[in-house]
This record gives sequence, structure tokens and C-alpha cells, in this order.
Amino acid sequence: MSADSSISLEQLNAVDAKEFVVALGAIYEHSPWVAQAAAVRRPFGSLAALHECMSRAVLAGDDSRKLALLNAHPDLAGKAARAGAITADSKIEQRGAGLDHLTEKEFSNFQSFNETYRKTFGFPFIICVLRHTKDSVFQQLERRAKNTLPVERETAVKEVIRIAALRLDRHVSAKDRLKVTGCLSTHVLDAYSGRPAHGVDVELRELSNSGNDGLIATAVTNADGRTDQPLIRDRPIPIGRYELRFAVARYFARIGVVLPDPPFLDIVPLRFSVADPEGHYHVPLLATPWSYSTYRGS
Amino acid sequence: MSADSSISLEQLNAVDAKEFVVALGAIYEHSPWVAQAAAVRRPFGSLAALHECMSRAVLAGDDSRKLALLNAHPDLAGKAARAGAITADSKIEQRGAGLDHLTEKEFSNFQSFNETYRKTFGFPFIICVLRHTKDSVFQQLERRAKNTLPVERETAVKEVIRIAALRLDRHVSAKDRLKVTGCLSTHVLDAYSGRPAHGVDVELRELSNSGNDGLIATAVTNADGRTDQPLIRDRPIPIGRYELRFAVARYFARIGVVLPDPPFLDIVPLRFSVADPEGHYHVPLLATPWSYSTYRGS
Amino acid sequence: MSADSSISLEQLNAVDAKEFVVALGAIYEHSPWVAQAAAVRRPFGSLAALHECMSRAVLAGDDSRKLALLNAHPDLAGKAARAGAITADSKIEQRGAGLDHLTEKEFSNFQSFNETYRKTFGFPFIICVLRHTKDSVFQQLERRAKNTLPVERETAVKEVIRIAALRLDRHVSAKDRLKVTGCLSTHVLDAYSGRPAHGVDVELRELSNSGNDGLIATAVTNADGRTDQPLIRDRPIPIGRYELRFAVARYFARIGVVLPDPPFLDIVPLRFSVADPEGHYHVPLLATPWSYSTYRGS
Amino acid sequence: MSADSSISLEQLNAVDAKEFVVALGAIYEHSPWVAQAAAVRRPFGSLAALHECMSRAVLAGDDSRKLALLNAHPDLAGKAARAGAITADSKIEQRGAGLDHLTEKEFSNFQSFNETYRKTFGFPFIICVLRHTKDSVFQQLERRAKNTLPVERETAVKEVIRIAALRLDRHVSAKDRLKVTGCLSTHVLDAYSGRPAHGVDVELRELSNSGNDGLIATAVTNADGRTDQPLIRDRPIPIGRYELRFAVARYFARIGVVLPDPPFLDIVPLRFSVADPEGHYHVPLLATPWSYSTYRGS
Repeated sequence: MSADSSISLEQLNAVDAKEFVVALGAIYEHSPWVAQAAAVRRPFGSLAALHECMSRAVLAGDDSRKLALLNAHPDLAGKAARAGAITADSKIEQRGAGLDHLTEKEFSNFQSFNETYRKTFGFPFIICVLRHTKDSVFQQLERRAKNTLPVERETAVKEVIRIAALRLDRHVSAKDRLKVTGCLSTHVLDAYSGRPAHGVDVELRELSNSGNDGLIATAVTNADGRTDQPLIRDRPIPIGRYELRFAVARYFARIGVVLPDPPFLDIVPLRFSVADPEGHYHVPLLATPWSYSTYRGS
Repeated sequence: MSADSSISLEQLNAVDAKEFVVALGAIYEHSPWVAQAAAVRRPFGSLAALHECMSRAVLAGDDSRKLALLNAHPDLAGKAARAGAITADSKIEQRGAGLDHLTEKEFSNFQSFNETYRKTFGFPFIICVLRHTKDSVFQQLERRAKNTLPVERETAVKEVIRIAALRLDRHVSAKDRLKVTGCLSTHVLDAYSGRPAHGVDVELRELSNSGNDGLIATAVTNADGRTDQPLIRDRPIPIGRYELRFAVARYFARIGVVLPDPPFLDIVPLRFSVADPEGHYHVPLLATPWSYSTYRGS
Repeated sequence: MSADSSISLEQLNAVDAKEFVVALGAIYEHSPWVAQAAAVRRPFGSLAALHECMSRAVLAGDDSRKLALLNAHPDLAGKAARAGAITADSKIEQRGAGLDHLTEKEFSNFQSFNETYRKTFGFPFIICVLRHTKDSVFQQLERRAKNTLPVERETAVKEVIRIAALRLDRHVSAKDRLKVTGCLSTHVLDAYSGRPAHGVDVELRELSNSGNDGLIATAVTNADGRTDQPLIRDRPIPIGRYELRFAVARYFARIGVVLPDPPFLDIVPLRFSVADPEGHYHVPLLATPWSYSTYRGS
Repeated sequence: MSADSSISLEQLNAVDAKEFVVALGAIYEHSPWVAQAAAVRRPFGSLAALHECMSRAVLAGDDSRKLALLNAHPDLAGKAARAGAITADSKIEQRGAGLDHLTEKEFSNFQSFNETYRKTFGFPFIICVLRHTKDSVFQQLERRAKNTLPVERETAVKEVIRIAALRLDRHVSAKDRLKVTGCLSTHVLDAYSGRPAHGVDVELRELSNSGNDGLIATAVTNADGRTDQPLIRDRPIPIGRYELRFAVARYFARIGVVLPDPPFLDIVPLRFSVADPEGHYHVPLLATPWSYSTYRGS
């Protein structure tokens, strides 16, 4: 299955079992037996029901089956990924947290960690990277390495199911969606004029422990003080630290407010963290040239 | 006069003219004639009256006297400063904006600027550096180089008088103070508990265009949510950009609030600029684990 | 035309001129000539175009026609209204500002005002009452009585056109709506918990100079912190003073916050005025048990 | 002892025992034995030590002594109070909660309550009225009538000691004060201009269940946005509901802001309750013509 192919739930219900397995065989990495188990339970009334059925098949498997499933995954940021020798979905996923752009130092740290981890637990380190920033992947590495084998095996299977849910949601069109995406939006109110702030330049940056802050999105507020699209949508919001930056002085100067030089407030930064990748984070700014406030809204 | 010597206004009123000039001769750089002019106007009822008298003497001087006064000043961040061959007061002042820690590149830029400026105007570039950050010194360089000669001469004399006022305020004890210092303070309110936030770690940083943010002060809020001392006081607040950082998550965790991991708000940055070095900037934070506001207070 | 009858723009474009005039003859009080003028300009592509055409016919009329149109209107809160001897639309409209529930004192004040006004200007006092509270009607009485005859005649005609617009919008179904209605909404954010406040009792009251505050609407916030419907919609918001009341202590007690007795904040009142009946007024509350803020939002 | 007489702690330590008892005999109503017990423990290093000693004497008394002490008090809002036949201190105290201005209905309710209470518990209802509004006195009536005899006797003695503390603090001058007074202050920040709001009319009202809101204080903010004196100080803040009213539109109009007619915000009410009469309640307003916020500050 190519990374962007799509099939409808109706089609999946209609085709023969073999075609069904061809279509969904890669939802669980190199493990078509999961799709085979689901094929005989058709038809599915919703995408959620299909996902539920496949994940139950995984959870119902015995330890050796689970172990095989885990071992079907490539090393995270490993040599295979570097060489391009992984599935299309895996490529998309590893790109998510910036794992395709590691420094040599980071890459060799990863190799060394992977090796130790595999020796300890008997399977590769698996994480649903689309839900993480590079910082939170490293944090998970450290935390999970301390788990007992049974806890870590359960954790790894749970991550495999999360990966599968995102793949299903990406590849299968249906009336319902799996709740695997989040939303990050903002809104700028001009409390000096008593109206939405129109034409404010907004930046969203991902903050990193390395100090390299990545630009995620730029936008300009519309007449309603909002950005035309949420800054992040249709995907999980990677767990991590973010900063919104609002060019407040430029806005107030343009509407004719006389500001000191330099202006008391120029670029206003709102720094916050995301802990729930499937959540709705609304982070508005209510500003005058001399004051501002923000809150986690809805 | 050594940089930290101090004399009282009463003493200055009482001593003979010669001693008066010894004491105040360096208030105006290498220009004891200003003190001489003031000596005969004694007694002074206040420090303000003394300053007023000296600055009037300067302004009343003819063009050649003013030019001589301007030319009595060393180059800003120049070779003399580097070699230590400047007055004690000048040393303190040039240290203020970090001009004693320039990179080789910055130093040679300064030399080249100074040379051009001196050729254009016939006197060295003079600025009251205690009122500026390195960024705003550079900004003033650029702006003032475009002035006409008469405007720039007036500007330079005004800066000389500002330098003198700070020197007077530092060296002469009196009942009154010259209004040459500002104040920067903060206050943290815990709107979750409805009381001052006690024990919040606070940092004040000076932001620089070079990206090297300098730590100005650290403090911990007391039971009233304030720092025991204003973060900047008894001196001008250098014109420039600043960031206050408040360790909000650490505070809320310590008082027992259950926070997500990572917490929505961790280190809250308040970024603002100072345009009025002699002003009172009160920049408070009103926070819950999910919201905050700030304003220029008093 | 009965007050709630409705006809579509398509029908109005299709019927013969006589039927058109029957349908729209009462849009301008007892003045079918306005509809007649519009009948010959059909078809209309939008409700806005129809309204524009009718109001142009009015404005194009000579002074005697305008005067006749003004004189076709009943006295505001007059004997005819009391006796029910006015058109169905007029009844609805006069009820709006509470003019059907005057005290004897207010009623006789109105009679006396109407008499004086009619003597001064030669036509009855006309105002689009759906855009006003009783207080603002009285304020308009006082202000407009001081106008010159030409200014007041123009003002009265403008009000007649506003009345007509609301009648058209009420009676004619079309793809577009005339911009004659406003919207008043609210939203409660719980900044203590970082989520919308669910289950907060909200009251909207109209404040009156007489001290009799009328309850306009009650609602309970839903899971999104909003009321299911805007508190006022599909009609102009009468110009006047309002108070929103939020049962904040009850909400925080219910979610388990330990509050003092009595709680610092119990019923939080937000008092504001509406100057633009066709505007969108969003008046949110952001609250903890110890703090709150509000703003005119969008 | 007249209600406003004052004596210093030094004098009290110096005079003979008889004079000491004359001076402090009325601190505990008609019970000079408490002062006698304290006389022999002199000298006292602080007012707090004197109060501690006297209250210990009361608490150490046996039940019959305590009962006699309770019975030495007049009925609250009783016939004796009405006739003026109570001590000067009692008069001041009963005036506090407005108990000297009861309606006939309230007065007869009080008589009837007092009678029932006295029958139940064997002593009059005693409460430190300076710590209460009329509403909270009534609330305490209802709550305390349900107590068991031992709990209510303890409660009554505690109130007697509170009354005594306030009398001591009022009559005895010393270096220390007893912590028996609270403070209610406000502050208005103009977030439109970025400076304290100077010249804002402020009212403080006590809200009552009866609907008769009593004006407690009026003030105008000074150049620092504060009132020259706290609105309540040097006395307990009666437990109850309050409203601060700020004439915000008048202020903004005066500094030249163009406002709609009527202005969105005119008189801004902040409604809050006091539960801790000895607390510091700082209730500031941060406002623009379109937004405001408040919080319990410090």
C-alpha cells in the first residue's frame, strides 16, 4: 500500500477477503494476519468498529505473536530508515518528529540506545512518532528504558495500535473518523478598540531543548481575529513545547495608535506545552498596547 | 575624583572655590570651567539647583567652548577606553552598556564609525551610555549619523548634560535626588488560590539582537508575591528589550496542583521594552496553571 | 397582512401587480403607493434589492407625500394602540419596548409628549421601537424634540424605512436577509480548571432607569461553556443597558473547589450597554473563584 | 470608661491595681474580675500579652463564672439598647451592623428570637457585631440556634473575647496592635493608556438581602490610580456582600476617548463577599473602554 492510497469502508466491506487483506495488510507493520482476522468479521458499520476489531485481534494474540508483531517494526531512526528500506507509512511517521534529520551525534545515540533496548526487551523501541516531538521521543526513551518487561511489552503494543489507528484514519475513507487528530488554534482580540484584531502576523514555533526552534506555521489574522485555518489540524499535535508569536506593535501602529519607541509590547510570545496530542488547544491573545492575557480556551 | 567618592552638598557650599572645583571639576569631562562658573553662585539649596546652574553654564557657552567640551570626551568604546586611559567615571559608564566586552568585529566597527562621525561633525560620538543597552547604542549611532551639524551638536550637548547629572547624583549626597534613575519591579498573583504567589523563581534578561540574552537579575517572590527589591533600581533602566521569566509550573506543583505532563504553562516569558530609562516599570503576572495576564502597572 | 404571514420573493416576482400590492401594501403603514411603485420594477434578485427599491420610492416622494406617509402612523403608545386599533405589525412593534405595559403616569406623559410633538412638527412621533428599550425611547423623545423641522422630518422618514426593513425581513422569505438583526452571546471559561465551564446558570437582564430590571433570558452553559442559543438573536438588540449574571460560586462548589463562606465571588454581574442594535455582542466571562475578566469579543 | 477614652500600656503597667481595674473593668462587659485577674500579672510587654492574659482568665473560669459573664451582656438589638441603657462600647458595637436602625418588624423579630434563644441556652445571644453586616448577623442567628448547649456556650465565650479584643485595641495605646482590623482597598489601571487611572469616581456599597444597598464610602482615584485611604481600614470588615462601582465611561471620555452612545462600559460593578473580617482585601480594576478584569490581590 502506498502512503497516500485511499479506499472506502464500503469497498472494504464489499471486496473478497484476499483483496481486503491486500488493502489493510500493512496497517499493522508486516503483519497481514491482523487484517485476515478482521476480514471474516465484516461488514463494519464504522471505521471505529473496524479499528476496534483489528486491535482486539492484536490484543488477543499470544505472547509469541505479539513479540513477532513488535519485531516486525524497524528500528526508530535506524539504519534501515536511513537507507529508505522501510515501509512508506513508516517513512512518513519517522519524518514527523524530525527523526529523518538527525545530526550524526543524535543518530549514533539512537543506534546505541536501540541496541541496548533490544538487548533488554527482545524487540525494537516502538513509539507512535506522529504524537511526539524529538524532545518527547527522547524523554520517552529514557522513561521506558526503566520499565519492567511485561509493562514495556504492553506499552509497545499500545503504541503499535496507535500507529495502526493513524494509518487507518489516513487510508480508509468513511463517514466517521477515528479520534486520532488534534487541533491548535488562536484568536486575537484588540481590547484597545473593542474588536477582533485584523491583520496580525502570527508564528507558531516548536521549541526544542537543542535551542533550534522550528517554525511550524505562519498566518495573518482575518477580520474575525482568527487564522483562516487552525495552525495545526487533521493530525495529532506532537507532545512538546510551543511558542506563538504575535506582532502586536506592528498591528497597533498600523491602526494609528501612537506607541513609544521602542514600543512596550512588540512581539508577544505565548509559550505553552501540549500533553494531549488529540486535544483541542485554543490559545487566544487579548491585547492592548500595554497589556495582554491568554488562557487555554475551547 | 575617584568613581565612588562622595561629598555632601553642605560641604560643597562651605568649602572655598578651589576645593569646590577640585570636587566637581570632573563632572563635566576634563572641563573644570563649568564647576568654576558654579562656584561663584553658591550656596545651592538643592542638588537640582546645583545641576541646573552647571548645565546653564554649559548651554550659555559659545560654540567654541561647547566644541571644546565635546572634544574633551573619549571615543565611545575607543582605543583609550580599551587601554584604560579614560576617567574613572567614563569607565563605569562604558561598562554599562557592555561596551567593555565587545567582540573584535564590534570593536573595529566602532572604530570605523567613530572615525567617520568625527570627520563629519568635528567631535567624538557622545551618548549617556548608562541609559542604553548595546542594541540601543547601535541604533542611536545609525540615527544620529544622519543629523545635520547643528541638530547633532545640540544632541551631543544634551547627552553631556545627562552624563553630568548621573555623575552628580552619584557623587554628591543631598536631601534631594536628581530624577535620573528608574525602577523595574514585578509581582506575582496566584489567581488559582486567590493570594500572592510565594516562592516563584523570577529571572530578568536583557534581550539582544545578537541573540546573546544577558541575565540581569534573579529573584524569588516573597509572601507578598513581590521580590524583596525591585529588579532594577537606583540607576536608569537601559533603553532596550527585556524578558521576565516566571517558573510557574514549579510553583503550582509545589502547592499541590495536579498538572499535565508536560504542564500547559511552565516558564512564562513576559517580553517588553523600556523606552523611558527614568520611568517606573511595574510588570506583574496574574496566573493560574491555565491562564495569565500582564500589564504595565504602577 | 397578518403579523406572521409570509411570502417568498419568488412568489412576489411571479404574481400580478395587484396581488403584489396586497402582499406588501402594509410594509409602509397605510401607504400602498410604495408597493405600487415597486411592483413595476420587478423582478428583484434579492430581498435587499426589493427593500432598496421601496425605500428609494419613499425618499423620492415630494414633501406632501412624505408628510402623508408620516401621518399614516399611529401615535406611539397612544390611545389607538391601547384600544387595539392599529395594524398587527404596529402591535408587535409597540410591544417590543414594553410600550404596551406603561403605568398610567407614563401613558399620560406619552399623550402629552405626542400632542406637543405633533403641534411642533405636524406629524406623530415615529421611532423603530424594536431597536429600543423604554429608556432609550424616552431619551430619543427628549433629543428629537429639539430638532429643527427639516432634520426631524428626515429622521422620522429614516425611522419609517427602518420599520419597513424589519417588516420585510419578517414577512418575505428569500435567500438573503436584510441586516436588521443583532446577536448577543456569552461564553464561560473556567481558568481554574483550564476548560469551558459547564453548567453555569446565566441570566440576562435589561436594566431600566426605573429600577425595574426585566429578565430577558436564562440559560445554562453547555459542555463548550456556551449557551445552546445566543441570548438574543434574529431581532435587533434594543439600545439600552444590560446585565449578565453568572452563578460562579455554585459552579465552582459543584466541581469540588473549597470556597470560603461566603464565597469571594458568588453571582458575577457584567454590566454593559448596547449602542448598535444590529451588532454582534459577545460578552464572555473568564473566571476563577478569585478573579474574572470580560471583554467585548466577536 | 467612655467609648473613646484611651490609656497607654505603660500607664496600665505603672498604676496601682485599683486604677488598672477602673481602666479595664469594662473591657469584659460588667465583669471587672477579668481585669482583676490580669492586674496581678503585670507588667505586660505588649498589648497582645495583656489580651492573652485576660482571655485566659475568662477561659479558665468555671461554668458558673462563664455563664455570669455571658449574662452580663445586653440583648442584641434589645429594649435596653433601644432605650440607650447599655454601655458606651455596646452602643458603638450595635450601631456597627445597623442594629440601631431596625424596622419595627426587624426589631420585633429580634425580640422574639432573643427570647427563644435565652430560653434554650440560658444566656443572651452574643456576637461581635463589628465583624458582621446585618445579613450575616441574621445568618448567625439561624445557624447558632441549632447548636448544642456546650458548643453554643463555647461559641458565645469566643465572641465575648473577640468583643474584648476590639475594645482593648480601641482603648489601649501600645507599640503593637491586636490583629483585629482588616483592610479593603482598590486600584484602577487604565490598560488603554498604560498608566494608573487618575480621577475615577469609586463607590463602595454594602449589599443587603433586603435590597437596601448602603453606601459605605466614596472616593476618587489619585495619580497612582489608588484611593488616598483604603476604603475600609482600622476596623474589621463586616462579613457580607459588597459592590465596588467605578465610573469608567466618565473617566475615558474625560481623557478624550471617543465612546459609543451609550458607552459599552459605563459604571463597572465588582461584586464580592468578605469572609475574613481581619483580612486584607485588595480588589483592583484593570480596564479599557471595552474590557476589564479584577482579582483578589494583596
